[in-house]
Amino acid sequence: MTRPDWIAVDWGTSHLRAYAMRGTDCLDRAQSSDGMGTLAPAAFEGAFLSLVGGWLLDNGPLPVIACGMVGSRQGWVEAPYRSVPCAPVGGPLVQAPTRDPRLHVHIVAGLKQTRPADVLRGEETQIAGFLARNPGWDGVICLPGTHSKWAHVSAGEVVSFQTYLTGEMFALLSEQSVLRHSLSGWNAAGFDAGLAQGLERPEWLLARLFALRAEGLVAGLDPATARARLSGLLIGAELAGARPYWLGQRVAVIGADGVAMLYAQGLRSLSVPVTVQDVTEMTLAGLSAARALLPQKTETSCAR
Amino acid sequence: MTRPDWIAVDWGTSHLRAYAMRGTDCLDRAQSSDGMGTLAPAAFEGAFLSLVGGWLLDNGPLPVIACGMVGSRQGWVEAPYRSVPCAPVGGPLVQAPTRDPRLHVHIVAGLKQTRPADVLRGEETQIAGFLARNPGWDGVICLPGTHSKWAHVSAGEVVSFQTYLTGEMFALLSEQSVLRHSLSGWNAAGFDAGLAQGLERPEWLLARLFALRAEGLVAGLDPATARARLSGLLIGAELAGARPYWLGQRVAVIGADGVAMLYAQGLRSLSVPVTVQDVTEMTLAGLSAARALLPQKTETSCAR
Repeated sequence: MTRPDWIAVDWGTSHLRAYAMRGTDCLDRAQSSDGMGTLAPAAFEGAFLSLVGGWLLDNGPLPVIACGMVGSRQGWVEAPYRSVPCAPVGGPLVQAPTRDPRLHVHIVAGLKQTRPADVLRGEETQIAGFLARNPGWDGVICLPGTHSKWAHVSAGEVVSFQTYLTGEMFALLSEQSVLRHSLSGWNAAGFDAGLAQGLERPEWLLARLFALRAEGLVAGLDPATARARLSGLLIGAELAGARPYWLGQRVAVIGADGVAMLYAQGLRSLSVPVTVQDVTEMTLAGLSAARALLPQKTETSCAR
Repeated sequence: MTRPDWIAVDWGTSHLRAYAMRGTDCLDRAQSSDGMGTLAPAAFEGAFLSLVGGWLLDNGPLPVIACGMVGSRQGWVEAPYRSVPCAPVGGPLVQAPTRDPRLHVHIVAGLKQTRPADVLRGEETQIAGFLARNPGWDGVICLPGTHSKWAHVSAGEVVSFQTYLTGEMFALLSEQSVLRHSLSGWNAAGFDAGLAQGLERPEWLLARLFALRAEGLVAGLDPATARARLSGLLIGAELAGARPYWLGQRVAVIGADGVAMLYAQGLRSLSVPVTVQDVTEMTLAGLSAARALLPQKTETSCAR
């Protein structure tokens, strides 16, 4: 069996995903729900070993390149934010403390912006992956998720970025609010209607949210239409707010299949040229790019 | 001791408030956390008796007039919505089933609107109270709360109304979202700044929410300013959306002291003439007006 020569890791608040890599090829993958949100710093190494122990070699340390909230102040080790404008990933990577001699763990830093204040962790790696695959690309990258990110990219650097609470808002409203009893399933026409409303009148968002419940009570609105309309209202309002980002630009959407398609639909309705990219592919390409920042052992040895 | 001749009740999802009344005078008050949200229909009478049993008379039934979610489908008995345009309260009131002969419970119906779909329960009584105190008043009534209501009132009727999810949104974001660790206390200047931002750019709401956390991380934003700014952002966005309601109108704000003052501040910053009214006073005046809808026993006897 081919042995990996490094491990790629995407470690967020609620998930841990690891990939056994040989060069840029992915040999194997594993994931668990050991998100960094539930772990104390001392517990990171154990959680990681229990997932990837089978991939490790006895004859020397395997490099591990990790991105995401694992590098936050509450993570395995803090990888301080780098300030934009800057390349999406840059050295040196921050090494995490480990007891097991078979591991050398390096963490990719997130990015920060001072005015307006903003931060991201994990998305810098996806942006780096996209730029590695598309050298010289200029435009805007949209990364939907719990906290959607929009980034202006030019000359290989992230120039500015902005975060929207859209995904978390959808989860809060559909699971914890008074609307939760009125929402279930998905009806695409409901999404279309909500998207149009959100784009046209983002300032009516707080009123149109309650209308989802009221229409259920007095006009028999079905829960599948209501839930899809909620998604459309929120994404529409985000796109209306992000106009300074996409206006006159081409946009690459990097995200999980379903949500990326919803954003692409919204952008196309605004005549914005859109390409959609798979988030895992971009993450692995970005971690590969980050790996190239490590000191090259062989060359170093030769130079001695 | 003066005995009450009726009992006024405001029974919402999370609270039960009762007032021992003689005419329009309040002799005593009592409240508990037996909101209708936690009670099965069969449990309403017991919860009510345990709060007000001491006020009841042995020599005949005491009329009880109740408003709020107690009249919803999940309440003591459903008091079906009345359709606007209509007077805020109107007869006949719906009688709730009781076993105790010392009680005659009458429930005020809520209001509904078909297009755009909307509903309210409880606020119709506060509006009726305001109109009873200010006969012939035309204008807009704003009722801040978990679900803020705006109502156009003319010629003694509610012409139209609209609900905003603002209060619930503040609770969700400050208690359940990623922002919760960044918010604590209150700084009035933060409210002013958020109000101005929310009014000017309501479409940037989803981005400015995440900025509350990001500014804490990269620029040391203090939690008291952040929490007040969140409130200002949401109320500002609501006021921007409610422009068709307040533009060129006079506005009466009916609400609990603190939140009513915040809405009044926002409206005054827009040069809208505002009067602020105490919510309990309006509720009692409205329940008194509803009581006048009951058939007058003495007169009925004489007519026989």
